[in-house]
Amino acid sequence: MSLEPAQMTIAEASREIEAGTLTPSALIESCLARTGAHESRVRAWACCADDQARMAARLLDPQERVGSLHGIPFGIKDIIDTADMPTEHGTPVFQGNQPARDAACVALLKAAGGVCLGKTVTTELAHFHPGKTRNPHAETHTPGGSSSGSAAAVAACMVPVALGTQTTGSVLRPASYCGVYGYKPSFGDVSRSGVFECAASFDTVGWFTRSVEDIEIVRRALIGAPAQPLTPVPLAGLRIGLIRGAAWAEVEPATQRLVESAVDQLRPMVASVKEIQPGAGFDAIAQHHRDIAGYEFARAITWERTNRRHLLSPKLLDGRCEDGLRCSYDQYAEAQQALAVQRTAIAQIMQDVDLLLTAVAPGEAWEGLAATGDPVCNTAWTALHLPAVSVPAFSGESGLPVGLQLIGGFRQDAQLLAAAESVRVALGIDTVRAQS
Amino acid sequence: MSLEPAQMTIAEASREIEAGTLTPSALIESCLARTGAHESRVRAWACCADDQARMAARLLDPQERVGSLHGIPFGIKDIIDTADMPTEHGTPVFQGNQPARDAACVALLKAAGGVCLGKTVTTELAHFHPGKTRNPHAETHTPGGSSSGSAAAVAACMVPVALGTQTTGSVLRPASYCGVYGYKPSFGDVSRSGVFECAASFDTVGWFTRSVEDIEIVRRALIGAPAQPLTPVPLAGLRIGLIRGAAWAEVEPATQRLVESAVDQLRPMVASVKEIQPGAGFDAIAQHHRDIAGYEFARAITWERTNRRHLLSPKLLDGRCEDGLRCSYDQYAEAQQALAVQRTAIAQIMQDVDLLLTAVAPGEAWEGLAATGDPVCNTAWTALHLPAVSVPAFSGESGLPVGLQLIGGFRQDAQLLAAAESVRVALGIDTVRAQS
Repeated sequence: MSLEPAQMTIAEASREIEAGTLTPSALIESCLARTGAHESRVRAWACCADDQARMAARLLDPQERVGSLHGIPFGIKDIIDTADMPTEHGTPVFQGNQPARDAACVALLKAAGGVCLGKTVTTELAHFHPGKTRNPHAETHTPGGSSSGSAAAVAACMVPVALGTQTTGSVLRPASYCGVYGYKPSFGDVSRSGVFECAASFDTVGWFTRSVEDIEIVRRALIGAPAQPLTPVPLAGLRIGLIRGAAWAEVEPATQRLVESAVDQLRPMVASVKEIQPGAGFDAIAQHHRDIAGYEFARAITWERTNRRHLLSPKLLDGRCEDGLRCSYDQYAEAQQALAVQRTAIAQIMQDVDLLLTAVAPGEAWEGLAATGDPVCNTAWTALHLPAVSVPAFSGESGLPVGLQLIGGFRQDAQLLAAAESVRVALGIDTVRAQS
Repeated sequence: MSLEPAQMTIAEASREIEAGTLTPSALIESCLARTGAHESRVRAWACCADDQARMAARLLDPQERVGSLHGIPFGIKDIIDTADMPTEHGTPVFQGNQPARDAACVALLKAAGGVCLGKTVTTELAHFHPGKTRNPHAETHTPGGSSSGSAAAVAACMVPVALGTQTTGSVLRPASYCGVYGYKPSFGDVSRSGVFECAASFDTVGWFTRSVEDIEIVRRALIGAPAQPLTPVPLAGLRIGLIRGAAWAEVEPATQRLVESAVDQLRPMVASVKEIQPGAGFDAIAQHHRDIAGYEFARAITWERTNRRHLLSPKLLDGRCEDGLRCSYDQYAEAQQALAVQRTAIAQIMQDVDLLLTAVAPGEAWEGLAATGDPVCNTAWTALHLPAVSVPAFSGESGLPVGLQLIGGFRQDAQLLAAAESVRVALGIDTVRAQS
């Protein structure tokens, strides 16, 4: 194999490092070379710490394997604290802000031998106002958001993995738009210590990779579990649920057809494909999510609202904040109670299927860089706290990537990823490599 | 009334400020005078920001009322971020650490007109290793922990309110030991943005005051709700449940008798008193809490464990951290699932009673300053996410304070506080004033 190291997945690079045919330093140089060649076009990085990364890699070169990510470069969304790099949260409010410690997720990746290459671009406080990042597949198109830089950096093969966060659809949508694998774990599974709080009821650390196998390697490092290879489940035993819900009406017909064609392709190979009719109240989940996320965000950023108001975008202040301040405690409590009921209902549904399958975004990445797209296909699953994967399954009408969303049962993340690997193979979806 | 201003509750001081008979500056001077007189004995403060507080008060003197806490001094546990004061988390690891922003709870109190007097002593990372604080009622006794300084500062009338946090029993126990009102809201009700994360499944911002009325004033400010007076519920309609559980065996006989005597006193005045038998699995809650809290804490402090190990106490590393690292993801998920079942069970129980009543601590404050006491009476209620109040109801055999614990239904905090006010009046418990 004469792959450029930066094009390798974590698993591939790790094998070479273990075999002695690749050093952490050579890998980081390859990643830095790709970054140098493509950053002016993609603009994925808020801060690229070349020298620190080189030094960290050099220390690992002669060492015994320290963990499952020995010498693996990674990127970090810039709302996640780092002790040795600024953390600016995508807003001039935090220009030059230097945290005292690494967030738990960063420290866990480093403890497993990972090498932090830098901080990736986020939208303003992980909300609507876009950062500078462009879609690596078409620079006039959005990469999606809010984890824009992380998705783009992995798609452009600048790093094999980058962390993002999802409060609505901020990992899965950019994964779909940028044509990489994206994963949001079950709510609560990965520590948020040191991650900027948007809506405590939903905020989840997620990540982007170029294979399903890599998602699992990183997941085990982030939950602090021993490394263990992913065992794909036999397709013949797999029970699939196709779920549409209210979001389906927002999905472009071309994307609907892609998802349905994938289901048709899988049907003869799996145990069953069942059309899932979401129960009463399912379609109101998006509104509950909006009420709760607004309520929590408006309170969480009280310091910013009262002390740095002039530096916040009108979209942030007049949109989510105003909504959130209008929402009363009783409305908030009612919305929370309604979601609790829906979580019980979906757990019932998930007794009959191993995974749910649906669109991950309404279509290809939007043209223009003024907005990052619509999370309509992600909101319910985030609100229900379920793990979800975006698999780069399709190419849309303009030739841009379109993902397929796989959703698992609560805290059934290992099972979801094993099933996703089998589905990937069945659909003939490859490891992602950069096109240029 | 010729009360020294520092002895006043929030409600009393607010009335005088509104009437023009007290200024924010005069109030802060009175609090600073008490602090000056008693701090060498009590050691409540990690950092007392006299000049900043004076300046903030002076700005409020000529102003219209900006909110429900206009000119009210408050203290902040030193694991809660402040933009204008260091935040050291009770450990040399964070010596001199200066956050970029105020935590949401601090910003909300300031937005309501509150004046931050300083940061109060916490145990090491809000865990076991004690800080320098002493019990204001007996300096050779622990004030309880981990919110030691906040409880002591309110008990000594240095401030009328101080914020703490509770992951196990870190607000209610020190409230009992120091003879003040302590309150832990329903889990999730107060934003934890900017609060050091110990165990995300349990961490809750709580506070200490010298009246029930004051708890509600602060609660409304912290959930961002408009001010509204507390309406006590008629005792005659109140259904009380006396609950013991496994913790009761750890409660000293003298304390058991105090709690039972309070129940006897209330019996003729209320609608009903029912002995609650917790269902199957209730007594295992403490073990589930230990598994989950250890699992989450060990991961949350990965940076501290891997980069500042030599500055952490052996108790922290060998105790909670080692336990937490030994707990597997599957054990963790099982414990979470078991707690979810118990939350449903307690919600059923709470359909028949308006509040539960039990001991808040096994007895009076422990002698000695090497440990902060036993949270055995608090763990289950924290794990179940229920709101709880400690009312300074009793005096123990050595003359030290002993609290009575009142527990409400999930997100029934307003109802709990209204009931607590009625119970307080019925038991003839007064507003707390300092004894010296």
